[in-house]
Amino acid sequence: MTLRLHNFFRSSTSTRLRAALNLKGLAYDYVPYALRKGETRTPEFLRRNPQGLVPVLELEDGQHLTQSLAIIEWLDETHPQPALLPRDPGARARVRALSYMIAMEIHPLNNLRVLMRVGEQFGADENAQKAWFTHWVNLGFDALEAELSQNPETGRFCCGDEPGMADICLYAQVWNNRRFDIPLDAWPTIARIYAACDALPAFSDAAPSRQPDAQ
Amino acid sequence: MTLRLHNFFRSSTSTRLRAALNLKGLAYDYVPYALRKGETRTPEFLRRNPQGLVPVLELEDGQHLTQSLAIIEWLDETHPQPALLPRDPGARARVRALSYMIAMEIHPLNNLRVLMRVGEQFGADENAQKAWFTHWVNLGFDALEAELSQNPETGRFCCGDEPGMADICLYAQVWNNRRFDIPLDAWPTIARIYAACDALPAFSDAAPSRQPDAQ
Repeated sequence: MTLRLHNFFRSSTSTRLRAALNLKGLAYDYVPYALRKGETRTPEFLRRNPQGLVPVLELEDGQHLTQSLAIIEWLDETHPQPALLPRDPGARARVRALSYMIAMEIHPLNNLRVLMRVGEQFGADENAQKAWFTHWVNLGFDALEAELSQNPETGRFCCGDEPGMADICLYAQVWNNRRFDIPLDAWPTIARIYAACDALPAFSDAAPSRQPDAQ
Repeated sequence: MTLRLHNFFRSSTSTRLRAALNLKGLAYDYVPYALRKGETRTPEFLRRNPQGLVPVLELEDGQHLTQSLAIIEWLDETHPQPALLPRDPGARARVRALSYMIAMEIHPLNNLRVLMRVGEQFGADENAQKAWFTHWVNLGFDALEAELSQNPETGRFCCGDEPGMADICLYAQVWNNRRFDIPLDAWPTIARIYAACDALPAFSDAAPSRQPDAQ
């Protein structure tokens, strides 16, 4: 038995994990769940993850790991090469901070369940949901662009010339932005790093459009 | 010169970092910023952190670290004792996942700038803001309670009998919930772990009410 990835093609956190597994060269079985059909709210899925969220990585011993960045850190600790985090503590802190600028400041406000909630609670239609989504992307990407463009540690990728955890988060968020056709013109460094990622099969093979459940 | 913590008494992410510094036994200078007065949007502060967010930890060499969990991981790597994460990769993944169940699934939806935004964009008054806040706490704490109560690795604290990163996130979120008087009755394991934390001066000294800028 190999690793099993319980995920959804369009989920940004699933895209992160697919890219991380590809960068590590780890094969996995792809198990899709249709979020809008409630397939992550079934008793069977909730036994895998009481949070009712994808992705979940099922290990060969039956253990289930949850939360994409916790799984990426686990992958880096158990399969060190190629590294997704640098070795120096200061550089690690920067890569984690860049990752969290997306994973804590943008993505949690913009995923499907939040868009559904602003619809339910505030009656937000598609246009209002787009305004909400765009607001958080603009705030977050403006700050990310400032950091990346000013910091000498930025190279071809977020930290030097090898891809890592922050690039994974950046790549998945740019894909997520396509839900509302947000152009990258205002953020040239982000656009450049996205293109550098997309040129690598580990990333492009992880893209939502390439997955078996893509619609 | 010692460490300088740029922070705000009520900020949940600031509470996390104060508790982590206290657990590590590290002294720091407390530099307060009034968020509602825009004191983290000044050019001087934006040079410290282009994100305009607290907390920021200023190191003795002038370097500025941002994002509370990135700083906590850095503290654990540079000052290993007492450990805030366990040694085993599987246990580390669980502690990170528990931390992110709060830091990525609850807190990003409920901090001050988001409450202000639902007011601005959707006209949400105090009651509607409370409903929004409570919705995300209920979803997140229900899942957290299920995990903590069912997992044999849970002890006096989230992972065994010593406090760590997940307890720090839990403690700060319970304090954050007080903004809207959310009782803990539905989550007995969370309530028990909160009380275990609050019995330790490292946590209780980090509480919002104990800070010099508390109002």
